[in-house]
Amino acid sequence: MKEKVKLGIIGLGNRGGLLLSNVIAHFKDVEICAVSDVSDRKMQKAKAIIEKEMKNTPLCLMDHHDLLAMDDIDAVVVFTGWQSHIPVAIEAMEAGKYVGIEVGGAYNLNDCQKLVDAYERTKMPCMMLENCCYGRVEMMVLSMVKQGLFGEIVHCAGGYQHDLCAEDLVREDETHYRLREYIYRNADTYPTHDLGPIAKVLNINRGNRMLYLTSMASKSAGLQHYIADKYGVDDKRARIEFMQGDIVTTTIKCAMGQTITLTLDTTLPRPYYSRNFTVRGTKGIYMEERETTFIKGGEIEKTQFNNEEYFEKYDHPLWKEYKALGEKGGHGGMDWLVMRAFVESVKRGEQTPIDVYDTAAWMSITPLSEQSIASGSMPVAIPDYTSGKWINREPIVRGKYCLEEVCEDNSISIY
Amino acid sequence: MKEKVKLGIIGLGNRGGLLLSNVIAHFKDVEICAVSDVSDRKMQKAKAIIEKEMKNTPLCLMDHHDLLAMDDIDAVVVFTGWQSHIPVAIEAMEAGKYVGIEVGGAYNLNDCQKLVDAYERTKMPCMMLENCCYGRVEMMVLSMVKQGLFGEIVHCAGGYQHDLCAEDLVREDETHYRLREYIYRNADTYPTHDLGPIAKVLNINRGNRMLYLTSMASKSAGLQHYIADKYGVDDKRARIEFMQGDIVTTTIKCAMGQTITLTLDTTLPRPYYSRNFTVRGTKGIYMEERETTFIKGGEIEKTQFNNEEYFEKYDHPLWKEYKALGEKGGHGGMDWLVMRAFVESVKRGEQTPIDVYDTAAWMSITPLSEQSIASGSMPVAIPDYTSGKWINREPIVRGKYCLEEVCEDNSISIY
Repeated sequence: MKEKVKLGIIGLGNRGGLLLSNVIAHFKDVEICAVSDVSDRKMQKAKAIIEKEMKNTPLCLMDHHDLLAMDDIDAVVVFTGWQSHIPVAIEAMEAGKYVGIEVGGAYNLNDCQKLVDAYERTKMPCMMLENCCYGRVEMMVLSMVKQGLFGEIVHCAGGYQHDLCAEDLVREDETHYRLREYIYRNADTYPTHDLGPIAKVLNINRGNRMLYLTSMASKSAGLQHYIADKYGVDDKRARIEFMQGDIVTTTIKCAMGQTITLTLDTTLPRPYYSRNFTVRGTKGIYMEERETTFIKGGEIEKTQFNNEEYFEKYDHPLWKEYKALGEKGGHGGMDWLVMRAFVESVKRGEQTPIDVYDTAAWMSITPLSEQSIASGSMPVAIPDYTSGKWINREPIVRGKYCLEEVCEDNSISIY
Repeated sequence: MKEKVKLGIIGLGNRGGLLLSNVIAHFKDVEICAVSDVSDRKMQKAKAIIEKEMKNTPLCLMDHHDLLAMDDIDAVVVFTGWQSHIPVAIEAMEAGKYVGIEVGGAYNLNDCQKLVDAYERTKMPCMMLENCCYGRVEMMVLSMVKQGLFGEIVHCAGGYQHDLCAEDLVREDETHYRLREYIYRNADTYPTHDLGPIAKVLNINRGNRMLYLTSMASKSAGLQHYIADKYGVDDKRARIEFMQGDIVTTTIKCAMGQTITLTLDTTLPRPYYSRNFTVRGTKGIYMEERETTFIKGGEIEKTQFNNEEYFEKYDHPLWKEYKALGEKGGHGGMDWLVMRAFVESVKRGEQTPIDVYDTAAWMSITPLSEQSIASGSMPVAIPDYTSGKWINREPIVRGKYCLEEVCEDNSISIY
């Protein structure tokens, strides 16, 4: 097992910068050998953080190919914009690196296949760094599901329900990357925060798979109203016609009969953020909207806002350990844990708990929803990126970061 | 205007019996001339209630054709099983009666057209007695929408989310009507409690219409597990194979660009009943799940469980009046109000606030969802029962029971 993981970081925008300063810079078993970004200013800022927190000096390389060419780098994490996740991940695998990519959907269905092909050629693991898989509620529910407390699982729902207008999606500089997406596309462009944890609950790619989906988009009105209200109807942005529907509803049918409902909901007013994580089984239900677990005949009778009571009883072992260590940075802990999961896999030379088949399947939802919406909500088939291996695949990763089973394993660090 | 409405009741099962004893028997402007049911016992029970509360003796007619043949009856209400709603309604219109039918979906899409044809031939109004259209929350939100408080409406959601297992769906007598449906069908068999109020919010059939839908059903597991748990795996009912998926998700696209999501959710454990009534606009949101109204920049800042505060400020005038009169029977008031709406229309010789086009469109969702599920969630077109009249149709009914506009009208009684 490696003592230290030699890491390269590609992309130092908002997300990359935060993950570096809040999370990775505090990992004692990581050495950041190089960073890459088109902005020298951002690289210098990252370098200063690394020198201060990690006591070493990384190379600053404007061209990420130079970073990938460094022999002593074991793994790279890709925090660039959505469009480059897949091409850079493929290059990284070809260069013999483990690769972690930030969340986001694909643009072209075929790119998902290319990602899988690159893995199968190189055998270098590729992990989507889907932090929500390591959320406290998501892990508690996963653990309860694996213990059979919810009975047979029948249906799950989730959403990315986040008023991005209220979070300054439309800035003075109108080229904010997601805004540009919303001008040109109409799809569930951001499905993995909700789908990732659900896919793990439903054993997708390990005994189950996603079979087909339909997507339907409402009209687009939220952004136009928002811009007119904020900047006035005479502002040139108030004349932008957005293709993106305000609410996109996607329904997915699984091979084993379960259904999944996903909602993209980012451009209309709502009072709070929610991923609406919902799991329905023959014995119980979890509902994020009411922070409620309900087990038929269960011991905790309160039927509303009982998260805290259930955490006490059913917290996932990883979260128990994490809480015992004291809070660490990044989205209430899940950024920390997902990065630990990646780093631990690299250290041990093992497969990642979210693997290339998961990554490809989850990313495929975006172009498939785009296709369904474009054709009047026609159902579209979801490719089987495992080429049939899903029928027999066991969890490859074991241990405390595993998302297929629940395991306490004190040989693996969390700190 | 009629002083008294001469009414016939067809069907005295659970629902008919309750509506008679809790609601209709207390209407001072109604005379029940006849009742009809295949059970003489139920007719005798109804007769006793009518004699006690209304001081007249109705005819008891086992064959409903004898009731429809009575010249002095103005209107009939049909509380029979789902299968006979449309044929009996057509017969009633042909006999020159106003007709109110209980809720429920159609079986055959063509029956919805026949219902409309019968109205167009006879001009006798036909109203689905969709009580949820007169629910307090639904009317408050409708009123706020009509005042423009939610801005432009973009999306609505609703569901019939009711654990019928916990409510004794599977009795010693296994022929409970809905259980039989669940053995043979796979559809959103009960869409109108959620769809009705949404259709009124979205002006369906009056400036808007439902264009197409997709439906997806999860596997069926809830009832089988429930029966095995309750009666044991050796009970013969534990071997029943149910065709009905536990969760059915239907997405509907409207001509004016809005989307609707409906959920049938009746056979898995859940801690409480919910219609999940949700309205999304460019300025505000209503969410039944958190009993929350949120208006951007609005005056009521609390973002959770603020129903009571909003009732105080925005209660629909009909509900203000109803509350002032003191509580009356039936599902917290909405049974009372929907029956008043029907009776008032008959008294005044006017159209009903839910008309035959609404009734047909809402009932069509069941066979259309059945068709979509049967064909792998293919989108299916929703017929335009108005044959284009929806483009120009104004609210026909005005006054306090109108569901297209909000009006205080003291000339119409509520009592």
